[in-house]
Amino acid sequence: MLSEGVKRIDHVAVVVRDLDTALHFYRDMLGITPSHVLDFPQEGVRIAFLPLGGTNGSEIELLEPVNPEGSVARFLEQRGGGLHHICLEVPDIDRALAELRAAGAQVLDAAPRPTAEGRGIFLHPKGTGGVLLELVQRTEAQ
Amino acid sequence: MLSEGVKRIDHVAVVVRDLDTALHFYRDMLGITPSHVLDFPQEGVRIAFLPLGGTNGSEIELLEPVNPEGSVARFLEQRGGGLHHICLEVPDIDRALAELRAAGAQVLDAAPRPTAEGRGIFLHPKGTGGVLLELVQRTEAQ
Repeated sequence: MLSEGVKRIDHVAVVVRDLDTALHFYRDMLGITPSHVLDFPQEGVRIAFLPLGGTNGSEIELLEPVNPEGSVARFLEQRGGGLHHICLEVPDIDRALAELRAAGAQVLDAAPRPTAEGRGIFLHPKGTGGVLLELVQRTEAQ
Repeated sequence: MLSEGVKRIDHVAVVVRDLDTALHFYRDMLGITPSHVLDFPQEGVRIAFLPLGGTNGSEIELLEPVNPEGSVARFLEQRGGGLHHICLEVPDIDRALAELRAAGAQVLDAAPRPTAEGRGIFLHPKGTGGVLLELVQRTEAQ
């Protein structure tokens, strides 16, 4: 088991074909103010961050694929967009990775990867009830 | 636009074939303590609530279909389980419904329905970037 537990839902990621169209709904209809928009070429996406709930709250992240060879572009083509993954924040990602491996969890990363929030690992949906699940340790500055 | 805005992500719902198997991962591997398990026959499901983040935090809800005729059972058969919907908390669901209808949003409910948390409405994925989106007003007791 994770000895330090899970702090919160960090974000829920939604793949969309077009950020502007999606923002028309989330920003202009629901009234959620994006904190920023970020190009994240490592994953082939542009991300709009929609924070909710203040401290200890969670974000909706809208992902628009910008690299047609990336996994998010494939997801969009195959499924037409929608919910992509849930990310949970943990205090120490190296420790979480070691403990999950020891417990036999199906971790997709051999080592934490750089993410838009800090350093993260992904768990295969087979072991999580069908959900692509990310764990992240946020970097200090974020 | 929603004049009172969105308070937070209330919960993220995940459809699973078997609650006990899913809890083995979320409770026993990740260390998230379920607050309670509820039978909710109105939607044909049994729900395990996994609160995270404390006040203003968000929950993961694990939904196991118990009625083979229900929409959650159909989702499980068609997709094999996984992420089902995101729910956002609003202060006043009747007002939110009226404002969304006036703005031309694709609301699936003519009036708020009783949910496991209070009173809610669902929005069609076509208008939300591919996500089945629920808005809920929590009842006082919850």
